[in-house]
Amino acid sequence: MSTTTDPPVYRDRLSRAQAAMRGAGIDVLLVGPSADLRYLTGIDAHLSERLNLLVVPAEGEVGFVVPRLEAPNVASHASILTLHVWDETDAPAELAARVVGGDASVAAVGDHLYSVFLLRLQTALPGTRWEPSGPLLRDLRMHKDATELDALREAARQTDAAWAEFLEGGPISGLTEREAMDRLMALTTKRGLATGFGICASGPNSASPHYHTGERVIEEGDSVVFDWGGVHQGYHSDMTRTVFVGQPTEEYRRVYETVRTANEAAFAAVRPGVACDEVDRAARDVITAAGYGDHFIHRLGHGLGLDVHEEPYLISGNRLPLAAGMVFSDEPGIYLAGNLGVRIEDTVVCTETGAERVNGAPRDLTVMD
Amino acid sequence: MSTTTDPPVYRDRLSRAQAAMRGAGIDVLLVGPSADLRYLTGIDAHLSERLNLLVVPAEGEVGFVVPRLEAPNVASHASILTLHVWDETDAPAELAARVVGGDASVAAVGDHLYSVFLLRLQTALPGTRWEPSGPLLRDLRMHKDATELDALREAARQTDAAWAEFLEGGPISGLTEREAMDRLMALTTKRGLATGFGICASGPNSASPHYHTGERVIEEGDSVVFDWGGVHQGYHSDMTRTVFVGQPTEEYRRVYETVRTANEAAFAAVRPGVACDEVDRAARDVITAAGYGDHFIHRLGHGLGLDVHEEPYLISGNRLPLAAGMVFSDEPGIYLAGNLGVRIEDTVVCTETGAERVNGAPRDLTVMD
Repeated sequence: MSTTTDPPVYRDRLSRAQAAMRGAGIDVLLVGPSADLRYLTGIDAHLSERLNLLVVPAEGEVGFVVPRLEAPNVASHASILTLHVWDETDAPAELAARVVGGDASVAAVGDHLYSVFLLRLQTALPGTRWEPSGPLLRDLRMHKDATELDALREAARQTDAAWAEFLEGGPISGLTEREAMDRLMALTTKRGLATGFGICASGPNSASPHYHTGERVIEEGDSVVFDWGGVHQGYHSDMTRTVFVGQPTEEYRRVYETVRTANEAAFAAVRPGVACDEVDRAARDVITAAGYGDHFIHRLGHGLGLDVHEEPYLISGNRLPLAAGMVFSDEPGIYLAGNLGVRIEDTVVCTETGAERVNGAPRDLTVMD
Repeated sequence: MSTTTDPPVYRDRLSRAQAAMRGAGIDVLLVGPSADLRYLTGIDAHLSERLNLLVVPAEGEVGFVVPRLEAPNVASHASILTLHVWDETDAPAELAARVVGGDASVAAVGDHLYSVFLLRLQTALPGTRWEPSGPLLRDLRMHKDATELDALREAARQTDAAWAEFLEGGPISGLTEREAMDRLMALTTKRGLATGFGICASGPNSASPHYHTGERVIEEGDSVVFDWGGVHQGYHSDMTRTVFVGQPTEEYRRVYETVRTANEAAFAAVRPGVACDEVDRAARDVITAAGYGDHFIHRLGHGLGLDVHEEPYLISGNRLPLAAGMVFSDEPGIYLAGNLGVRIEDTVVCTETGAERVNGAPRDLTVMD
C-alpha cells in the first residue's frame, strides 16, 4: 500500500511531525489505522474493534500499540518505533494511556480514529485537552515529495488509459449503470491499479453529484457522469468525464461547454501563492455568468494523495495559499435536478511556475452510443 | 447494501433504539455512516470528511444531517426521518448541535464515527456527557431477525460453493498468496457476493493470524490458511479453511486434529443461556490439553452481520449469555511462530435448542497440490 518501505523516509516524516507538535504546543499525537498512519510510518494496520494506535510524543521515542495477533505485521517497523503489544483480554486504551505517560496538556487525535477509542482514551486520560490532528498534519501531507508525485502521476496515467479503452469498447446504451461502471473499473484494475471507487450516474441521476451507482438502464438522450479512480502504491487517481448518449441537446451543449470552460478557468488560476478559494472562484464565476450559479452546489475540489479526499480543499473561504507540490482535483459541475448533470474533473499539481494536469484524457464534448 | 428498504422495518428498529435509550438514560444517539446506520435506517451513507449524522432523540422525531450534494441519496428515507441539509460552506457540527436542541445530559456516539466529528460535537455541546453507543445498540444488532438470518445463510452458502470449486481448481503450489486469494475471491464474487476481505497466509506466514496476503510463493510442505468472505445484501460471510500442500507432517496432523476438535467442542457448547466465555473455554480447553494453549493467541470468535466483526465476542471474561438468533464465528487456531498455523472457522447461529452451522464446507484434513 505504501510508496516506500524505506525507514529513513518515515523517520524524517515522524521527526517533522514532532517539530510541528512542538511549534503548536501539542504534547502527544495519537493516530489509528488511516492514511495518516501510512504516511507517518508506512504501517497499513487493520481497522477494526481491536485498537492499533501510534503514539508520537513531541520529543523522544515513538510507540505503537498493537494487538498480539497483529504484531507480526508491524515487526519490520521496529527500527522506527517501539511496539507495545496487548493480549486479547487486556484493556488497550489503558495501555495507550501508560505509553502516553499519563495526562498530556494537549493531545492531537487522528481525524479518522473511531470515536469509541477516543472516548476510552478520554476516560483513561481525564485531564487532557483533545484536538483534531488535521491542522497539525496537513502541512506535511499536502506537500508531496517527488516519490508521491510519481505515484499520483502513474495512477492518473493508467486511469486515462482505461478511459480511452472504455470509449472504444462499444455502446453503453442498454447497460445498467452498474454494468457500465464494472466495465470501466475492470479496465482500470487490469492496468495494475487497485480498486478505488466508482460513480456512474445516468439521465436524471447525473444531477446528483454523489449518486450511488445503481440499476438504472442507460438510454439514448442521457447525460452520463463517470467519476472513478484506482490506487497505485497507496496513491489515488480521481477523474470525472461526462458523455452524452446519442445526439446532444442544445441545453446539454450549453451546460457542457460552461463546465469545460470553468474547469479550464480554474486550471489557469493555479500557481503558488494563489489562495484555494480564488481557484474555486475562477470556476464559479464562469458558471455564475452563464446563469447556472445556483446549480454548482459543491466546492471546486479537494486534495488527493493517500486519501481520495484530503487537504487542501478548494472551497469558498479557504484562504490557504497554494504551494508547489500540492495536488488537488479541479471538478466544477452543473446539476439540473430531474434532468441532467455534467462534471469534468482533472487532477492538478501546483508547480513552481503554475500547474500541471496529471491526467490527460480529452475534455471535448463526447458522444457514446 | 441493505436487506430491505421497507420503512416499517426501520421505524421499528428506531423505535426499539429509542426505548432502549429511555431505559439507559440516554438523551440522544448520534450515528455516522456505518453498519449501525444501515441497521437503523437502511441508509448507506458516504463516509468522508463531509458530516452525515443520524440524530435520534429518546423520544420524537429522528433527524438526519446531510450535505446538500448527498441529500438526493437519502430523499427516499424521508418517511422515517427529517432531513437537515447543509451547504458546502456551513458548519455541520453546529447544525447537528441545533438539531440535538442544545446540550443533552448524555449522548451516545456511534462507535465508528470519526473522532474529528466527535471533537467538533463536543465543542458545540460542551455540557454533554459522551458515551459509546455500543452497549446500547448491541442488544438490537445481536438478535438477528429471520430476514437477516436468511441473508447470512445465503452469504455462507455461496462461500461454501466457492470453496468447493476452488478445491477442484488445480494446484496452488507455485502461485503467490495473492494469486491464490484472487482465484478464490473471483469464485466467490462470481456467485453474486460483493467482495469482502481475504487473507491467504502460507508456510511460516500461516502462523500470523492477521497476516496481510503477500507475494510469497506457495510451495510443497506449506500449511496455507484461507480466511475470507463476501457480502450478500449487506451481510457478511466469514470462513477459514487450512490446507496442506503435499504430504502432511506428523506435527501438522496433530495440530490440525486439535484445532478441528476444538472447533467441534465449541460448536457443541452453543445453546441459549450459555455464556460467551464458556464457548471460548470449550475450545481452549481442548487446545490446552493438547499442549498448545500458549499458541491459541486470540479469542474464539466474533459476531457477524452487517459488520464482519461485531457483538457478541466469544472471549474469556465475557459473561453475556447466548440467545437464539445470535450469529458468530467459531474459529480456534494454533500458531507455531516461524513454522505453521492452522485455523478452522465456521459461522454459527444460536438456535432455540442449540446451534446451526450456516456454512457446510468439510473440515477434514485437506491436501492440495
